[in-house]
Amino acid sequence: MADPIFERVALIGLGLIGSSLALAIQRGGLARHVVGHARSPKTRKIAGEIGLAERVCESAADAVSDADLVILCVPVGACAEVAKEIGPKLKAGAVLTDVGSVKEAVIRDVAPYVPQSVHFIPGHPIAGTEQSGPLSGFAELFDGRWCILTPPPLSDPGAIERLKSFWRGCGSNVEIMDAQHHDLVLAITSHLPHLIAYNIVGTAADLEEVTKSEVIKYSAGGFRDFTRIAASDPVMWRDVFLNNKDAVLEMLGRFSEDLSALQRAIRWGDADTLITLFTRAREIRRGIIAAGQDTAAPDFGRQKTSADAPLPPKRGG
Amino acid sequence: MADPIFERVALIGLGLIGSSLALAIQRGGLARHVVGHARSPKTRKIAGEIGLAERVCESAADAVSDADLVILCVPVGACAEVAKEIGPKLKAGAVLTDVGSVKEAVIRDVAPYVPQSVHFIPGHPIAGTEQSGPLSGFAELFDGRWCILTPPPLSDPGAIERLKSFWRGCGSNVEIMDAQHHDLVLAITSHLPHLIAYNIVGTAADLEEVTKSEVIKYSAGGFRDFTRIAASDPVMWRDVFLNNKDAVLEMLGRFSEDLSALQRAIRWGDADTLITLFTRAREIRRGIIAAGQDTAAPDFGRQKTSADAPLPPKRGG
Repeated sequence: MADPIFERVALIGLGLIGSSLALAIQRGGLARHVVGHARSPKTRKIAGEIGLAERVCESAADAVSDADLVILCVPVGACAEVAKEIGPKLKAGAVLTDVGSVKEAVIRDVAPYVPQSVHFIPGHPIAGTEQSGPLSGFAELFDGRWCILTPPPLSDPGAIERLKSFWRGCGSNVEIMDAQHHDLVLAITSHLPHLIAYNIVGTAADLEEVTKSEVIKYSAGGFRDFTRIAASDPVMWRDVFLNNKDAVLEMLGRFSEDLSALQRAIRWGDADTLITLFTRAREIRRGIIAAGQDTAAPDFGRQKTSADAPLPPKRGG
Repeated sequence: MADPIFERVALIGLGLIGSSLALAIQRGGLARHVVGHARSPKTRKIAGEIGLAERVCESAADAVSDADLVILCVPVGACAEVAKEIGPKLKAGAVLTDVGSVKEAVIRDVAPYVPQSVHFIPGHPIAGTEQSGPLSGFAELFDGRWCILTPPPLSDPGAIERLKSFWRGCGSNVEIMDAQHHDLVLAITSHLPHLIAYNIVGTAADLEEVTKSEVIKYSAGGFRDFTRIAASDPVMWRDVFLNNKDAVLEMLGRFSEDLSALQRAIRWGDADTLITLFTRAREIRRGIIAAGQDTAAPDFGRQKTSADAPLPPKRGG
């Protein structure tokens, strides 16, 4: 390894993001040493067995001592406690960052515990899957995705630059934004979609006229697309909604207004309004595909993997 | 071809479903002759060039004469007009079916034009992609998916049986249901998800604080999952909402009530309610995967296909 960006990286939290970072660091040769910590003994055991880090520590404080880059990969609601524990152990000159989906609340919770000599540069990779835990990670998770950094106004430019290089080394594009704007952008692109997905799955589960088995059986009509993001980690998402309350409620208010208008268009049989709205949605999809943020393959290029899906019967030819 | 289920099939409409049926019929040897019709000259030209049917007729009436199975593959709102045109030309003993996402309205619109001697058995394959047109079809579209038939009470059992065999030959499982129940089941598993997806894409497009390019750029946070079904054919979906108004408005009412409760839980910081709801959603997802109605691969097994997604930079190793 000729020239790693950081000598020693500490990953606090080894779920989907932490384990993917460990693998991306290995792939890119981004650090000479990676040390990890997870709160759960089971996660620590698995992380050790699959070699996510050269050392998996029982305490976060042990993991960060001597680290040049510390990345908090825990749910947003757990950041304050971790920051309190590691604050006194952070090395002078180290970069401290996180991967949380909310930025203002993380700054509020973490900044008070960060020593003057440490560069705290909050971050958020816009990448993930519906899976969780140390076995769900993969090195390619961040490839072609955006990572947003929200450095406070007086941050050290050199520290920002090194963190940008690190994320580029993980395959990401990097964008700088202020924390408040980040929280608004993510409220519409990520938090509201998850909220809506969780909600519709709940609505479907509560029906009495239509059984749960029918909902499952006929989900290929569209419903199954929502269940993927609704299968995401419940603790992570509870923390997101509780910590980005204002922006989420604002976006939810707009969504509900729009939905009332759409409801009225259906009730009144207003065909033109429906066509106009539906046609516009295709353009947005095309923009996402052109920007490399989704695949153009129909059905997301889903593979037919089910073992119990029947094969078409053989017929005489 | 030893023993096709139908001697001659007429496909009225050659979009995603019609063209996929043509290819599934070829794959399975399900008919000796396939004749097609599309309203648009451009579609007819393409269908002829790619060999979807041995003959592509300018008029629907020409296409159905002498057919043993006639399948209406047009938007729900176009069924009445087509039925009126083809009714007098239908062969005695023929089976007439459709693929519409709404069944009560299709029965209301089509049945009056069907001669006594013809077996009208409405149907609906729960399969599709967000793409449209004669080039979007593929033979595997119906593999492992359900097809719901909603035969009227006094339908001929032999005719139902032949239509079931036909759909099984296309790779589907077949379920029988009454039309009203179908419309309720589909309202929650398909129509409401599409409505919600269209709505959130509209909400995102209208924001001023967050630009459309930001919505596109950061869509991997969840939003992009909604844009797939929101890219579906606008005319088809306009017709679905206008023709299944009562069931859609009923499901939308429930969804909105649930959303209000969720909004209140966020406003009040009710962590337990959020965790309970979010945890339940994972079970439904597992059920869908176990039933073979979606892939277990993370992110739907999306391929990273974008030409402009940056590769991770090479580093010394």
